[in-house]
Amino acid sequence: MIKQLSISTLRQGLHEITHEIAVAVSDSRLQEGLCTVFIKHTSASLIIQENADPSAAYDLEQWLNRLVNENDQRYTHTSEGLDDMPSHIKTTLTATSVSIPVINGQLALGTWQGLFLWEHRRANMQRTVIVHTGA
Amino acid sequence: MIKQLSISTLRQGLHEITHEIAVAVSDSRLQEGLCTVFIKHTSASLIIQENADPSAAYDLEQWLNRLVNENDQRYTHTSEGLDDMPSHIKTTLTATSVSIPVINGQLALGTWQGLFLWEHRRANMQRTVIVHTGA
Amino acid sequence: MIKQLSISTLRQGLHEITHEIAVAVSDSRLQEGLCTVFIKHTSASLIIQENADPSAAYDLEQWLNRLVNENDQRYTHTSEGLDDMPSHIKTTLTATSVSIPVINGQLALGTWQGLFLWEHRRANMQRTVIVHTGA
Repeated sequence: MIKQLSISTLRQGLHEITHEIAVAVSDSRLQEGLCTVFIKHTSASLIIQENADPSAAYDLEQWLNRLVNENDQRYTHTSEGLDDMPSHIKTTLTATSVSIPVINGQLALGTWQGLFLWEHRRANMQRTVIVHTGA
Repeated sequence: MIKQLSISTLRQGLHEITHEIAVAVSDSRLQEGLCTVFIKHTSASLIIQENADPSAAYDLEQWLNRLVNENDQRYTHTSEGLDDMPSHIKTTLTATSVSIPVINGQLALGTWQGLFLWEHRRANMQRTVIVHTGA
Repeated sequence: MIKQLSISTLRQGLHEITHEIAVAVSDSRLQEGLCTVFIKHTSASLIIQENADPSAAYDLEQWLNRLVNENDQRYTHTSEGLDDMPSHIKTTLTATSVSIPVINGQLALGTWQGLFLWEHRRANMQRTVIVHTGA
Protein backbone atom coordinates (compact mmCIF):
# COMPACT_ATOMS: atom_id res chain seq x y z
CA MET A 1 0.00 0.00 0.00
CA ILE A 2 1.18 3.49 -0.87
CA LYS A 3 0.16 6.79 0.70
CA GLN A 4 1.39 10.26 -0.21
CA LEU A 5 1.75 12.93 2.45
CA SER A 6 2.20 16.65 1.97
CA ILE A 7 4.26 18.37 4.65
CA SER A 8 4.81 22.10 5.11
CA THR A 9 8.21 23.07 6.44
CA LEU A 10 8.29 26.52 7.98
CA ARG A 11 12.01 26.84 8.53
CA GLN A 12 15.36 25.19 7.83
CA GLY A 13 15.99 22.24 10.14
CA LEU A 14 14.53 19.01 11.50
CA HIS A 15 10.77 18.47 11.44
CA GLU A 16 9.57 15.33 13.20
CA ILE A 17 7.10 13.30 11.10
CA THR A 18 6.93 10.10 13.21
CA HIS A 19 3.25 10.65 14.00
CA GLU A 20 2.23 11.16 10.36
CA ILE A 21 4.04 7.96 9.33
CA ALA A 22 2.54 6.02 12.27
CA VAL A 23 -0.94 7.05 11.14
CA ALA A 24 -0.21 5.87 7.58
CA VAL A 25 0.98 2.50 8.96
CA SER A 26 -2.14 2.22 11.11
CA ASP A 27 -4.35 3.04 8.09
CA SER A 28 -2.65 0.28 6.08
CA ARG A 29 -3.73 -2.34 8.69
CA LEU A 30 -0.37 -4.06 8.16
CA GLN A 31 0.46 -6.19 11.21
CA GLU A 32 3.99 -7.33 10.38
CA GLY A 33 6.21 -6.13 7.58
CA LEU A 34 8.19 -3.14 6.42
CA CYS A 35 7.42 0.57 6.09
CA THR A 36 9.57 2.50 3.62
CA VAL A 37 9.49 6.29 3.57
CA PHE A 38 10.70 8.21 0.50
CA ILE A 39 11.06 11.96 0.01
CA LYS A 40 10.53 13.34 -3.52
CA HIS A 41 13.09 16.15 -3.26
CA THR A 42 16.81 16.83 -3.63
CA SER A 43 17.08 19.69 -1.12
CA ALA A 44 15.33 18.02 1.84
CA SER A 45 16.03 14.61 3.31
CA LEU A 46 15.10 12.01 5.95
CA ILE A 47 16.88 10.83 9.08
CA ILE A 48 16.03 8.77 12.15
CA GLN A 49 17.40 10.47 15.26
CA GLU A 50 16.80 11.13 18.92
CA ASN A 51 13.46 12.85 19.54
CA ALA A 52 13.63 13.10 23.34
CA ASP A 53 16.04 15.96 24.01
CA PRO A 54 15.79 18.86 21.47
CA SER A 55 19.45 19.73 22.10
CA ALA A 56 20.48 16.71 19.98
CA ALA A 57 18.56 18.02 16.96
CA TYR A 58 19.91 21.52 17.56
CA ASP A 59 23.55 20.40 17.71
CA LEU A 60 23.08 18.19 14.67
CA GLU A 61 21.76 21.08 12.58
CA GLN A 62 24.54 23.38 13.74
CA TRP A 63 27.23 20.78 13.04
CA LEU A 64 26.02 20.12 9.49
CA ASN A 65 25.75 23.87 8.84
CA ARG A 66 29.42 24.22 9.84
CA LEU A 67 30.47 21.27 7.64
CA VAL A 68 28.59 22.47 4.54
CA ASN A 69 29.43 26.14 4.24
CA GLU A 70 26.94 28.41 2.48
CA ASN A 71 29.54 31.00 1.57
CA ASP A 72 31.82 28.93 -0.60
CA GLN A 73 32.99 30.81 -3.68
CA ARG A 74 33.71 27.55 -5.46
CA TYR A 75 30.04 26.62 -5.93
CA THR A 76 28.87 27.05 -9.54
CA HIS A 77 25.24 25.95 -8.93
CA THR A 78 24.12 29.27 -7.43
CA SER A 79 21.12 30.52 -9.44
CA GLU A 80 18.60 29.62 -6.72
CA GLY A 81 20.48 31.25 -3.86
CA LEU A 82 23.20 30.58 -1.32
CA ASP A 83 21.27 27.80 0.41
CA ASP A 84 20.63 25.79 -2.77
CA MET A 85 23.90 23.92 -3.33
CA PRO A 86 24.44 23.30 0.41
CA SER A 87 20.95 21.75 0.43
CA HIS A 88 21.91 19.23 -2.26
CA ILE A 89 25.10 18.32 -0.38
CA LYS A 90 23.26 17.89 2.95
CA THR A 91 20.64 15.71 1.25
CA THR A 92 23.41 13.54 -0.19
CA LEU A 93 25.02 13.06 3.25
CA THR A 94 21.71 11.99 4.84
CA ALA A 95 18.90 9.83 3.34
CA THR A 96 16.26 9.99 0.61
CA SER A 97 14.66 6.69 1.71
CA VAL A 98 14.53 4.87 5.06
CA SER A 99 12.89 1.56 5.97
CA ILE A 100 11.41 0.74 9.38
CA PRO A 101 10.06 -2.69 10.38
CA VAL A 102 6.41 -2.97 11.45
CA ILE A 103 5.66 -5.31 14.38
CA ASN A 104 2.20 -5.78 15.94
CA GLY A 105 0.82 -3.12 13.64
CA GLN A 106 3.29 -0.46 14.80
CA LEU A 107 6.59 1.08 13.69
CA ALA A 108 9.31 -0.86 15.54
CA LEU A 109 11.32 2.24 16.43
CA GLY A 110 13.69 2.29 19.41
CA THR A 111 12.73 4.18 22.55
CA TRP A 112 14.56 7.35 21.53
CA GLN A 113 14.09 7.12 17.77
CA GLY A 114 11.96 9.52 15.75
CA LEU A 115 11.73 10.02 11.99
CA PHE A 116 12.54 13.53 10.81
CA LEU A 117 12.15 15.43 7.56
CA TRP A 118 15.23 17.65 7.32
CA GLU A 119 14.43 20.84 5.44
CA HIS A 120 17.66 22.26 4.05
CA ARG A 121 16.20 25.32 2.28
CA ARG A 122 15.44 28.54 4.15
CA ALA A 123 12.09 29.28 2.48
CA ASN A 124 8.71 27.82 3.44
CA MET A 125 8.41 24.68 1.36
CA GLN A 126 5.70 22.13 0.59
CA ARG A 127 7.29 18.68 0.62
CA THR A 128 5.91 15.33 -0.58
CA VAL A 129 6.73 12.14 1.28
CA ILE A 130 5.61 8.69 0.04
CA VAL A 131 4.94 5.88 2.52
CA HIS A 132 5.02 2.29 1.27
CA THR A 133 3.94 -0.58 3.51
CA GLY A 134 4.25 -4.23 2.58
CA ALA A 135 4.58 -7.67 4.14
CA MET B 1 11.60 -9.89 -9.09
CA ILE B 2 15.32 -9.37 -9.29
CA LYS B 3 17.40 -8.10 -12.20
CA GLN B 4 21.15 -7.59 -12.31
CA LEU B 5 22.63 -4.77 -14.38
CA SER B 6 26.22 -4.31 -15.43
CA ILE B 7 27.32 -0.70 -15.75
CA SER B 8 30.62 0.60 -17.14
CA THR B 9 31.94 3.74 -15.48
CA LEU B 10 34.45 5.60 -17.57
CA ARG B 11 35.57 8.18 -15.04
CA GLN B 12 35.30 9.18 -11.39
CA GLY B 13 31.99 10.93 -10.67
CA LEU B 14 28.23 10.69 -11.01
CA HIS B 15 26.72 8.47 -13.71
CA GLU B 16 22.95 8.72 -14.07
CA ILE B 17 21.24 5.30 -14.21
CA THR B 18 17.59 6.39 -13.89
CA HIS B 19 16.76 5.08 -17.36
CA GLU B 20 18.27 1.64 -16.75
CA ILE B 21 16.32 1.28 -13.49
CA ALA B 22 13.10 2.51 -15.12
CA VAL B 23 13.46 -0.16 -17.81
CA ALA B 24 13.92 -2.85 -15.13
CA VAL B 25 10.75 -1.63 -13.38
CA SER B 26 8.86 -1.65 -16.66
CA ASP B 27 10.07 -5.21 -17.41
CA SER B 28 8.85 -6.35 -13.97
CA ARG B 29 5.27 -5.25 -14.86
CA LEU B 30 4.86 -4.12 -11.24
CA GLN B 31 2.06 -1.53 -11.02
CA GLU B 32 2.37 -0.45 -7.39
CA GLY B 33 5.08 -1.30 -4.92
CA LEU B 34 8.71 -0.65 -4.16
CA CYS B 35 11.90 -0.73 -6.22
CA THR B 36 15.12 -1.23 -4.26
CA VAL B 37 18.48 -0.68 -5.94
CA PHE B 38 21.65 -2.19 -4.46
CA ILE B 39 25.27 -1.77 -5.57
CA LYS B 40 27.64 -4.71 -5.03
CA HIS B 41 30.75 -2.62 -4.35
CA THR B 42 32.51 -0.74 -1.55
CA SER B 43 34.20 1.92 -3.69
CA ALA B 44 31.15 3.09 -5.66
CA SER B 45 27.77 4.12 -4.29
CA LEU B 46 24.24 5.31 -5.07
CA ILE B 47 22.52 8.67 -4.56
CA ILE B 48 19.33 10.35 -5.70
CA GLN B 49 20.07 13.91 -6.75
CA GLU B 50 19.15 16.69 -9.14
CA ASN B 51 19.50 15.63 -12.77
CA ALA B 52 18.37 18.86 -14.45
CA ASP B 53 21.33 21.22 -14.09
CA PRO B 54 24.75 19.49 -14.41
CA SER B 55 26.32 22.18 -12.20
CA ALA B 56 24.71 20.51 -9.14
CA ALA B 57 26.46 17.20 -9.85
CA TYR B 58 29.72 19.02 -10.57
CA ASP B 59 29.68 20.98 -7.31
CA LEU B 60 28.72 17.87 -5.36
CA GLU B 61 31.68 15.92 -6.72
CA GLN B 62 34.06 18.80 -6.04
CA TRP B 63 32.77 19.28 -2.49
CA LEU B 64 33.15 15.60 -1.59
CA ASN B 65 36.64 15.54 -3.13
CA ARG B 66 37.60 18.44 -0.85
CA LEU B 67 36.10 16.75 2.24
CA VAL B 68 37.77 13.40 1.61
CA ASN B 69 41.37 14.22 0.81
CA GLU B 70 43.34 11.78 -1.34
CA ASN B 71 46.69 12.92 -0.01
CA ASP B 72 46.31 12.03 3.65
CA GLN B 73 49.45 10.48 5.12
CA ARG B 74 47.41 8.89 7.89
CA TYR B 75 45.74 6.32 5.61
CA THR B 76 47.13 2.81 6.11
CA HIS B 77 44.92 1.11 3.45
CA THR B 78 47.01 2.25 0.49
CA SER B 79 48.01 -0.83 -1.51
CA GLU B 80 45.50 -0.16 -4.31
CA GLY B 81 46.42 3.49 -4.81
CA LEU B 82 45.64 6.95 -3.51
CA ASP B 83 41.99 6.83 -4.61
CA ASP B 84 41.22 3.55 -2.81
CA MET B 85 40.68 4.61 0.81
CA PRO B 86 38.88 7.86 -0.15
CA SER B 87 36.54 5.67 -2.24
CA HIS B 88 35.56 3.59 0.79
CA ILE B 89 34.95 6.74 2.85
CA LYS B 90 32.84 8.37 0.12
CA THR B 91 30.79 5.18 -0.24
CA THR B 92 30.18 5.16 3.52
CA LEU B 93 28.91 8.77 3.47
CA THR B 94 26.46 8.07 0.63
CA ALA B 95 24.32 4.93 0.03
CA THR B 96 24.74 1.28 -0.92
CA SER B 97 20.95 0.73 -1.23
CA VAL B 98 18.07 3.09 -2.04
CA SER B 99 14.34 2.37 -2.29
CA ILE B 100 11.96 4.19 -4.62
CA PRO B 101 8.16 3.70 -4.64
CA VAL B 102 6.50 2.49 -7.86
CA ILE B 103 3.15 4.07 -8.75
CA ASN B 104 1.20 3.35 -11.95
CA GLY B 105 4.02 1.15 -13.15
CA GLN B 106 6.64 3.91 -12.90
CA LEU B 107 9.31 5.09 -10.47
CA ALA B 108 7.67 7.79 -8.32
CA LEU B 109 10.66 10.14 -8.50
CA GLY B 110 10.26 13.88 -7.98
CA THR B 111 10.50 16.23 -10.94
CA TRP B 112 14.19 16.95 -10.41
CA GLN B 113 15.27 13.58 -9.02
CA GLY B 114 17.54 11.15 -10.83
CA LEU B 115 19.30 8.04 -9.55
CA PHE B 116 23.08 8.11 -9.89
CA LEU B 117 25.84 5.57 -9.57
CA TRP B 118 28.75 7.44 -8.03
CA GLU B 119 32.05 6.01 -9.18
CA HIS B 120 34.74 6.90 -6.65
CA ARG B 121 37.70 5.14 -8.34
CA ARG B 122 39.65 6.78 -11.16
CA ALA B 123 39.97 3.69 -13.36
CA ASN B 124 37.39 2.35 -15.81
CA MET B 125 35.31 -0.04 -13.73
CA GLN B 126 32.58 -2.58 -14.43
CA ARG B 127 29.94 -2.25 -11.70
CA THR B 128 27.03 -4.53 -10.80
CA VAL B 129 23.74 -3.10 -9.62
CA ILE B 130 20.84 -5.31 -8.46
CA VAL B 131 17.24 -4.13 -8.87
CA HIS B 132 14.54 -5.69 -6.68
CA THR B 133 10.86 -4.94 -7.29
CA GLY B 134 8.06 -6.14 -5.08
CA ALA B 135 4.53 -5.26 -4.03
CA MET C 1 9.41 -12.55 8.32
CA ILE C 2 10.98 -10.55 11.11
CA LYS C 3 13.75 -11.58 13.48
CA GLN C 4 15.30 -9.50 16.26
CA LEU C 5 18.97 -9.91 17.13
CA SER C 6 20.77 -8.69 20.23
CA ILE C 7 24.41 -7.74 19.65
CA SER C 8 26.99 -6.84 22.30
CA THR C 9 29.52 -4.23 21.23
CA LEU C 10 32.65 -4.24 23.33
CA ARG C 11 34.31 -1.12 21.97
CA GLN C 12 33.77 1.87 19.70
CA GLY C 13 34.13 0.93 16.04
CA LEU C 14 33.00 -1.48 13.34
CA HIS C 15 31.61 -4.89 14.32
CA GLU C 16 30.91 -7.23 11.41
CA ILE C 17 27.45 -8.86 11.60
CA THR C 18 27.28 -10.43 8.13
CA HIS C 19 27.18 -13.95 9.58
CA GLU C 20 24.32 -13.19 11.98
CA ILE C 21 22.25 -11.66 9.17
CA ALA C 22 23.06 -14.58 6.82
CA VAL C 23 21.77 -17.02 9.47
CA ALA C 24 18.53 -15.02 9.81
CA VAL C 25 18.08 -15.14 6.00
CA SER C 26 18.75 -18.88 5.98
CA ASP C 27 16.21 -19.40 8.81
CA SER C 28 13.59 -17.48 6.81
CA ARG C 29 13.89 -20.00 3.93
CA LEU C 30 13.43 -17.08 1.51
CA GLN C 31 14.88 -18.01 -1.89
CA GLU C 32 14.58 -14.71 -3.75
CA GLY C 33 13.66 -11.33 -2.34
CA LEU C 34 14.97 -8.59 -0.12
CA CYS C 35 16.55 -8.52 3.33
CA THR C 36 16.28 -5.22 5.21
CA VAL C 37 18.32 -4.64 8.35
CA PHE C 38 17.32 -1.92 10.83
CA ILE C 39 19.12 -0.76 13.98
CA LYS C 40 16.96 0.51 16.87
CA HIS C 41 19.43 3.13 18.10
CA THR C 42 20.55 6.71 17.43
CA SER C 43 24.18 6.35 18.56
CA ALA C 44 25.09 3.24 16.54
CA SER C 45 24.55 2.66 12.83
CA LEU C 46 24.93 0.25 9.89
CA ILE C 47 27.23 0.28 6.88
CA ILE C 48 28.26 -2.12 4.14
CA GLN C 49 32.00 -1.97 3.64
CA GLU C 50 35.09 -3.97 2.78
CA ASN C 51 35.58 -6.91 5.14
CA ALA C 52 38.74 -8.37 3.59
CA ASP C 53 41.53 -6.06 4.74
CA PRO C 54 41.08 -4.71 8.31
CA SER C 55 43.09 -1.59 7.39
CA ALA C 56 40.03 -0.26 5.50
CA ALA C 57 37.84 -0.44 8.61
CA TYR C 58 40.63 1.08 10.70
CA ASP C 59 41.15 4.06 8.38
CA LEU C 60 37.41 4.60 8.09
CA GLU C 61 37.00 4.81 11.88
CA GLN C 62 39.97 7.16 12.20
CA TRP C 63 38.72 9.41 9.40
CA LEU C 64 35.24 9.76 10.90
CA ASN C 65 36.73 10.42 14.33
CA ARG C 66 38.72 13.29 12.82
CA LEU C 67 35.66 14.71 11.00
CA VAL C 68 33.39 14.56 14.04
CA ASN C 69 35.42 16.04 16.87
CA GLU C 70 34.59 14.97 20.44
CA ASN C 71 36.05 18.10 21.98
CA ASP C 72 33.81 20.72 20.42
CA GLN C 73 32.76 23.40 22.91
CA ARG C 74 29.75 24.27 20.75
CA TYR C 75 27.86 21.05 21.56
CA THR C 76 24.95 21.64 23.97
CA HIS C 77 23.79 17.97 24.14
CA THR C 78 26.50 16.90 26.59
CA SER C 79 24.79 15.31 29.62
CA GLU C 80 25.71 11.75 28.59
CA GLY C 81 29.39 12.45 27.98
CA LEU C 82 31.76 13.68 25.28
CA ASP C 83 31.04 10.73 22.97
CA ASP C 84 27.25 11.22 22.96
CA MET C 85 26.68 14.05 20.47
CA PRO C 86 29.43 12.82 18.09
CA SER C 87 27.61 9.45 18.12
CA HIS C 88 24.37 11.04 16.91
CA ILE C 89 26.24 12.90 14.15
CA LYS C 90 28.10 9.78 13.01
CA THR C 91 24.83 7.81 12.95
CA THR C 92 23.27 10.54 10.79
CA LEU C 93 26.14 10.40 8.27
CA THR C 94 25.88 6.59 7.91
CA ALA C 95 22.73 4.40 7.86
CA THR C 96 19.95 3.25 10.18
CA SER C 97 18.53 0.82 7.59
CA VAL C 98 20.11 -1.05 4.68
CA SER C 99 18.52 -3.45 2.17
CA ILE C 100 20.33 -6.37 0.53
CA PRO C 101 18.85 -8.57 -2.23
CA VAL C 102 18.50 -12.30 -1.57
CA ILE C 103 19.31 -14.62 -4.50
CA ASN C 104 19.31 -18.43 -4.30
CA GLY C 105 18.59 -18.22 -0.59
CA GLN C 106 21.66 -16.11 0.15
CA LEU C 107 22.55 -12.45 0.67
CA ALA C 108 23.70 -11.15 -2.73
CA LEU C 109 26.68 -9.24 -1.35
CA GLY C 110 29.68 -8.42 -3.49
CA THR C 111 32.94 -10.30 -3.01
CA TRP C 112 34.39 -7.71 -0.65
CA GLN C 113 31.20 -6.55 1.03
CA GLY C 114 30.36 -7.18 4.66
CA LEU C 115 27.62 -5.68 6.82
CA PHE C 116 28.87 -3.86 9.91
CA LEU C 117 27.26 -2.49 13.05
CA TRP C 118 29.16 0.69 13.83
CA GLU C 119 29.23 1.36 17.56
CA HIS C 120 29.83 5.05 18.14
CA ARG C 121 29.73 5.02 21.97
CA ARG C 122 32.77 4.08 24.04
CA ALA C 123 30.94 1.96 26.63
CA ASN C 124 29.95 -1.70 26.26
CA MET C 125 26.48 -1.58 24.73
CA GLN C 126 23.72 -4.08 24.00
CA ARG C 127 22.26 -3.26 20.58
CA THR C 128 19.08 -4.52 18.90
CA VAL C 129 19.00 -5.13 15.16
CA ILE C 130 15.81 -6.15 13.32
CA VAL C 131 16.01 -8.29 10.16
CA HIS C 132 13.06 -8.25 7.75
CA THR C 133 12.92 -10.67 4.81
CA GLY C 134 10.25 -10.61 2.15
CA ALA C 135 9.66 -11.58 -1.48
